[in-house]
Amino acid sequence: MTVRVGILGATGYTALELLKILVRHPEVEITALTTRQEDRPHISAIHPQFHKVLDLRLENWGPQEVAQHCNCVFGCLPHAASASVIPEFLEAGLKVVDLSADYRLNDPAVYTQWYGGDHPDAERMKTTVYGLPELFRKGIAEAQLVANPGCYPTGVTLALAPLLKNGFIRADGIIADCKSGASGAGRTPKMATLYPECNESFTAYGVGTHRHMPEIEQNLTVYAGKPASVIFTPHLVPMDRGILSTCYALPDNDASEKELLSLLEETYANEPFVRVRSDLPATKHVSGTNFCDITVRRVKDRVLTISAIDNLVKGASGAAVQNFNLMYGFAETTALL
Amino acid sequence: MTVRVGILGATGYTALELLKILVRHPEVEITALTTRQEDRPHISAIHPQFHKVLDLRLENWGPQEVAQHCNCVFGCLPHAASASVIPEFLEAGLKVVDLSADYRLNDPAVYTQWYGGDHPDAERMKTTVYGLPELFRKGIAEAQLVANPGCYPTGVTLALAPLLKNGFIRADGIIADCKSGASGAGRTPKMATLYPECNESFTAYGVGTHRHMPEIEQNLTVYAGKPASVIFTPHLVPMDRGILSTCYALPDNDASEKELLSLLEETYANEPFVRVRSDLPATKHVSGTNFCDITVRRVKDRVLTISAIDNLVKGASGAAVQNFNLMYGFAETTALL
Amino acid sequence: MTVRVGILGATGYTALELLKILVRHPEVEITALTTRQEDRPHISAIHPQFHKVLDLRLENWGPQEVAQHCNCVFGCLPHAASASVIPEFLEAGLKVVDLSADYRLNDPAVYTQWYGGDHPDAERMKTTVYGLPELFRKGIAEAQLVANPGCYPTGVTLALAPLLKNGFIRADGIIADCKSGASGAGRTPKMATLYPECNESFTAYGVGTHRHMPEIEQNLTVYAGKPASVIFTPHLVPMDRGILSTCYALPDNDASEKELLSLLEETYANEPFVRVRSDLPATKHVSGTNFCDITVRRVKDRVLTISAIDNLVKGASGAAVQNFNLMYGFAETTALL
Amino acid sequence: MTVRVGILGATGYTALELLKILVRHPEVEITALTTRQEDRPHISAIHPQFHKVLDLRLENWGPQEVAQHCNCVFGCLPHAASASVIPEFLEAGLKVVDLSADYRLNDPAVYTQWYGGDHPDAERMKTTVYGLPELFRKGIAEAQLVANPGCYPTGVTLALAPLLKNGFIRADGIIADCKSGASGAGRTPKMATLYPECNESFTAYGVGTHRHMPEIEQNLTVYAGKPASVIFTPHLVPMDRGILSTCYALPDNDASEKELLSLLEETYANEPFVRVRSDLPATKHVSGTNFCDITVRRVKDRVLTISAIDNLVKGASGAAVQNFNLMYGFAETTALL
Repeated sequence: MTVRVGILGATGYTALELLKILVRHPEVEITALTTRQEDRPHISAIHPQFHKVLDLRLENWGPQEVAQHCNCVFGCLPHAASASVIPEFLEAGLKVVDLSADYRLNDPAVYTQWYGGDHPDAERMKTTVYGLPELFRKGIAEAQLVANPGCYPTGVTLALAPLLKNGFIRADGIIADCKSGASGAGRTPKMATLYPECNESFTAYGVGTHRHMPEIEQNLTVYAGKPASVIFTPHLVPMDRGILSTCYALPDNDASEKELLSLLEETYANEPFVRVRSDLPATKHVSGTNFCDITVRRVKDRVLTISAIDNLVKGASGAAVQNFNLMYGFAETTALL
Repeated sequence: MTVRVGILGATGYTALELLKILVRHPEVEITALTTRQEDRPHISAIHPQFHKVLDLRLENWGPQEVAQHCNCVFGCLPHAASASVIPEFLEAGLKVVDLSADYRLNDPAVYTQWYGGDHPDAERMKTTVYGLPELFRKGIAEAQLVANPGCYPTGVTLALAPLLKNGFIRADGIIADCKSGASGAGRTPKMATLYPECNESFTAYGVGTHRHMPEIEQNLTVYAGKPASVIFTPHLVPMDRGILSTCYALPDNDASEKELLSLLEETYANEPFVRVRSDLPATKHVSGTNFCDITVRRVKDRVLTISAIDNLVKGASGAAVQNFNLMYGFAETTALL
Repeated sequence: MTVRVGILGATGYTALELLKILVRHPEVEITALTTRQEDRPHISAIHPQFHKVLDLRLENWGPQEVAQHCNCVFGCLPHAASASVIPEFLEAGLKVVDLSADYRLNDPAVYTQWYGGDHPDAERMKTTVYGLPELFRKGIAEAQLVANPGCYPTGVTLALAPLLKNGFIRADGIIADCKSGASGAGRTPKMATLYPECNESFTAYGVGTHRHMPEIEQNLTVYAGKPASVIFTPHLVPMDRGILSTCYALPDNDASEKELLSLLEETYANEPFVRVRSDLPATKHVSGTNFCDITVRRVKDRVLTISAIDNLVKGASGAAVQNFNLMYGFAETTALL
Repeated sequence: MTVRVGILGATGYTALELLKILVRHPEVEITALTTRQEDRPHISAIHPQFHKVLDLRLENWGPQEVAQHCNCVFGCLPHAASASVIPEFLEAGLKVVDLSADYRLNDPAVYTQWYGGDHPDAERMKTTVYGLPELFRKGIAEAQLVANPGCYPTGVTLALAPLLKNGFIRADGIIADCKSGASGAGRTPKMATLYPECNESFTAYGVGTHRHMPEIEQNLTVYAGKPASVIFTPHLVPMDRGILSTCYALPDNDASEKELLSLLEETYANEPFVRVRSDLPATKHVSGTNFCDITVRRVKDRVLTISAIDNLVKGASGAAVQNFNLMYGFAETTALL
């Protein structure tokens, strides 16, 4: 079975990474790429990596034209824009993996607080499945629409969820100090992400105000069974890709470092894309892969977790294909190893 | 007055940076550079930056030969090696700024616990002044020997000390999540600091075991007036120089963010090298300078400080010259602006 | 059919890249990895990328032990060491792709001049096929031993060979100004490739003395049908991977830029891994791929070619698998797209 | 004597570097910084490096207002814009160092060919002195207006001029293969200079069309005493600053490598900022300095020169201050060592 697949908003870095994975997928035919540009640029003019690999033009198509060409779409549109068009795809019977933030939160009031404005599709967001297969595999497999997780929430949630679920750490007082490569800032020209501004510099940004904070808290609250409180501090690293998340939590039992590590190992023993390590993860070891590497440490009165992902793969496009595989009943690792 | 100055162990990055500063210092004549190499290499063969700038050879000299040429030495030797030779310089009447870790701690037992072995000069270490001018200016000015602070402790201490001293934050439960450029790892060839290992990677190291942890705690204990407890997590950033320290502390009063910032601004109003900012510091803004940029934030139930230094300047060689200026009564900013 | 494959010298960057490709190869079982280390390290201790991916230890095996486990070996040994052991593998009936320089040249005197010492297997080197499929596909398919090309010679030869063969440029007076990422310098700790030495620096090296110069000249001489003379200047770029080669040649006819481009396009129209472009190649566009991107320009009295490869893929391990595919009759692109 | 100095167009990287140098200059008072922005931003909001260092706002001033505050201006305006306002400053009696390209060429027709449009001040451009002190020191000292050289032309000219002047190389058939850090592309947001586009990539640009080509040819023609012909190929290096120029020329006599090196050493023996080296220059060795490092090699039938500068210092702002020092009779190295 071949699925005809489209990408909405194909000019950015997540779309680029998605295409790299999809061209290797044996069950996929890429049939539509969209953009707001009017001049129908060839994909190799936007992403020269696809010269001689993919012979397709980007089209300024609306939902109806896309729906004529596709069974499934990956949404790489900005927030709000995404939820404005996705309902039309769903009504047309397509499956959708949405990489925007629009369907991740399930409380419209929280959405409005952090993203501003009313949610364009508020009823649906309340029940949309959150596409972290390690936590919600069954729901994803049955869904027509999956909300692909944010990059930071992926690394933080995978590290902390088992510890919360099993009562090893407390749900309050969590600190997530996270560091991301510059591709996370997108491909729109801005002074802050010019090479001579980012290179040879390290800085925090969005301290206390980043929109991934409520997303992390929502995830951890599910696992804790009570409200989780997280201070989330993102930083910008002078490298293309990769996120390292260093999390600090208060222990809720007297488990040793060895017991903490065992819990993680047991939790993820059969997960194809989570690797629990006793040594320290590095973003380079997961670069270009769909893996999340995790370790845990006991330091003084705190439990530390350190996790590494590639923000463009496990933090975006790899996870999207993992979700796609589940939604269509393909082997979950197809095109991802 | 011209001070004849020597550098012990002149082949590494701190010595390189020290020389860059000292060649601009109007009161300094550089008269001795030492190494264990036997072949008397010209400084421009070790650091090509000094071609046509400094015409001096590195000598495999012992303390007596150095003492004949110098009034003052900067020690860039490894720990333990440093404290084994420094007593001889002091007895010969020289002033010494020691950039090694040997005289920073003042408890020999703590030294042994973290560095291993007995301290070679234990009595002296108990009373050696810690060369952070913003905190110990008077003692430095009167000292014959100054222990130059570690890079990480400098950034963390300058951010937290005023908050502790004035009862704004608690001394326990402090987290210092710090990120350093690769020059901090030194110039000795190791696989871990090869370009293709560090580049495009981000990782933690020395989690819970780094030797700067007790140094930070010693500093903060002085300011808190009670034992401070710090979890210190260093990370390696793919850049040459710079340290950003993100610290999380529990508030000990109900001061607002504005009041926290005002306290820092007042504390450092007359300090030439500490800049309190309302926006977020970046290592690039202090690169190549002796500045420490600091801000403070109130996020949920925590006080956050973010500080940036150049690890080779304010975190090592710039601070060393600042101490030198104080020890000789020169204007503190000489050669540093 | 599954080929049991071994890698000789599996600790470096070419072996790492080879393994990344081979784990995706549907016809390959990796059965042996060798090292001189005695402690049988697990592959994930050497290359943490293979944690949970490849469960194999590196063995200090000699040819006989390797031959018992494998049908084919990839040699990632240093020059001279490689040609000292490869004859034993060939006698044992194995196929060999040698990534060292030992069998690339076919004149033992030239080898001695550039590499020093007598060649350990001089007779065989004279007739070993040079593993550039675009030029020697038929010979590779029939060979038991293939000499995998050097990284720089690959990019330069693919750009210039068609122009020489068709009489568009002269064989003398060629200049190849080439720029490579730091992974080309290998994984052995050296001061010159420490992060703080390479980063934020650009330099030439091996000017007039690099061993790829005679290899390039040998290749171009075959195509010109007369002795080619090349000045080859390699440079080190602060990036992990990629080679850009800017070549300057004297035209030997009055072809326009358009005609030059057409010649290249026609030559490579059916080549799966050579992409002729009208715009300028960038190493990023071929990073992680087996592609060679080429363009050509006419500037004043010169023909310029600019070609880009990933030095670790098309310049080493990808080419090795391409050769392997040909030697075993697999589709040439298997595991490489 | 204190000179009141202004910078026209103070928001970019050359202005930033100029300010870093000027704040150290003992004879300079910075009195005006201009921008087209209307909101009078503080310099520390544009360049946070100057927090607590320089207390000045950028003003949207025209020539008359600037002239009221300054004795001398440095022009960091775009080409054409620069020559449109500079005549007013000159008429008001100010001295001007123009860092734009407007007065570098001395043939209006060549200007029109490469920059487009008529030159706004064509008569003056014909006679404006070219601010390369090593070649035109006397003219600079007497000038009211100096055209500060382009970054690429500086490195290429300093390497080749002595060889041309003394008949060691031919004026035709010169190739200048140059590599620059990304700060050379300026601070205006563009997709091509976003961090994730430049980082881990190496590419050529402006092949055969870069505007520094006629500037290089004009310089070399002066020295050769006959028309020089140069093929100039610029490349973009993933680093902040630095230019390495690898030049290939045909020898015009039978001088040995040693004789070539001696000629350069003698030529530049008394130059404070040119360092002739026997080993290979690296951009890191001149980073942050006003030095130009040069070496020369004889390879086969060519003379190779390799030169390194910091594009922002010797290639722009350092050279501008060197010119300023000459124009005011200050020691040429003031604020530059």
